[in-house]
Amino acid sequence: MKNIEQLTPKQIRGLIRKGEWDKPTAGLTMGYAQANLVILPQKYAFDFLLFCQRNPKPCPLLEVLEPGEFRTKALSLDADIRTDIPLYHVYQKGRLQETVKEIKSLWEPDFVSFLLGCSFSFEEALLRANIPVRHIEENKNVPMFISSIPCISAGIFHGPMVVTMRPIPSNKVTQAIQITSRYASVHGAPIHIGDPRTIGIKDLRKPDFGDPVTIKKREVPVFWACGVTPQAVVMRTKPEFCITHAPGHMFISDLLNEELAAP
Amino acid sequence: MKNIEQLTPKQIRGLIRKGEWDKPTAGLTMGYAQANLVILPQKYAFDFLLFCQRNPKPCPLLEVLEPGEFRTKALSLDADIRTDIPLYHVYQKGRLQETVKEIKSLWEPDFVSFLLGCSFSFEEALLRANIPVRHIEENKNVPMFISSIPCISAGIFHGPMVVTMRPIPSNKVTQAIQITSRYASVHGAPIHIGDPRTIGIKDLRKPDFGDPVTIKKREVPVFWACGVTPQAVVMRTKPEFCITHAPGHMFISDLLNEELAAP
Repeated sequence: MKNIEQLTPKQIRGLIRKGEWDKPTAGLTMGYAQANLVILPQKYAFDFLLFCQRNPKPCPLLEVLEPGEFRTKALSLDADIRTDIPLYHVYQKGRLQETVKEIKSLWEPDFVSFLLGCSFSFEEALLRANIPVRHIEENKNVPMFISSIPCISAGIFHGPMVVTMRPIPSNKVTQAIQITSRYASVHGAPIHIGDPRTIGIKDLRKPDFGDPVTIKKREVPVFWACGVTPQAVVMRTKPEFCITHAPGHMFISDLLNEELAAP
Repeated sequence: MKNIEQLTPKQIRGLIRKGEWDKPTAGLTMGYAQANLVILPQKYAFDFLLFCQRNPKPCPLLEVLEPGEFRTKALSLDADIRTDIPLYHVYQKGRLQETVKEIKSLWEPDFVSFLLGCSFSFEEALLRANIPVRHIEENKNVPMFISSIPCISAGIFHGPMVVTMRPIPSNKVTQAIQITSRYASVHGAPIHIGDPRTIGIKDLRKPDFGDPVTIKKREVPVFWACGVTPQAVVMRTKPEFCITHAPGHMFISDLLNEELAAP
């Protein structure tokens, strides 16, 4: 068998579908977009779709499936959302009930699947331009913080924006903004640059999720909207039932990151 | 009273609200974004919101209001969607029933209002760069064509994309693409450049809506997705009830066109 990093999205999804890959997907199928997943019963779907429309930076929709539909069309033509994600989290009333490798037996005809962009896509673009991505260098999870920036609420969904932080050398901040601006469907340009207290973050060494990373001299903390926001918002509203991917265990699409980029 | 062209959005909306302006809004409040309106009962709202999410070029959402809500938040903080549009079209089962100056008496608590971007915004940007906009020069309506490009369907909503055509001097086509690319929330970059037959248009002299315009030597027909698409799609699906703005009689927002633009 080829080295796992060299497999195509279709080949990796095949392994995942057979239950032969249940680990995180970071570093797999470089160049291809990966996606966050949120599945909700139809009665919550309009409110959640409206929430994403109103908050495109933390909730950039890549594809939304019709009620009951489990096959993607835009992100892949041969994927099944019930089996093609390495690990799923199943929530009842906002509480994690179980972590499973497929959700065929849980599937209901009114389930609506939302696939959202992931910052892996723009991190590749930063690295290609020799802009350091510290948590990758240090082999850690990106540091994530619950900011004081409120999302715009929609129906029952509301809550603060979760942000990621990447320290950027001060002479490369402008270029980091330019590069990530091209990727609006994967969180896009930064939400905030510089003083973390302005957005309610007290201590960069104590992220709410993920790991702290080194901030070197002459580096500026730069903050991007984070794909954990929609999951945090969904958990906060405690819907009767909800399924998401397990953190880091993403859906691997057939779309190249560059297909998602603006000019 | 000041010249009508010099009034602010708030002043113009005030006149419209009092029934003192029921004419088209082209040329008013230059620099401010105007919006298309579609109002549907809640049972159609998820499908239509999904249709817009899947077809952002013809259906660029600027704001969607909660069910029953008639005050905008993003586009203005003092507008009432029931009174602040010069003329409304009221449809039952896809048929135009009446044209009215306000819809307070028709309002129901389950109405969902969708406000969509309008190409007036990018036409201003083209003119600022000395790129001709022929239908403005000739004091006509923009020529619109029903193309053979299918929209991506969503629930009950489906149909072909309606496109506008502007003849652009061949040495300015690249710049016209660059400029309009910045305005993704008002139809953005062209859908097609050049041969109209490729997208199912037989005769540029016979538009399906609007007026034919002169195409000069060394000009290329350039096609953009058109805001008539969502209305055409809604009419085609014959929802029990629907209200839209009357063509050309738009909602005038407090947002500057430049606030909608990408870098």
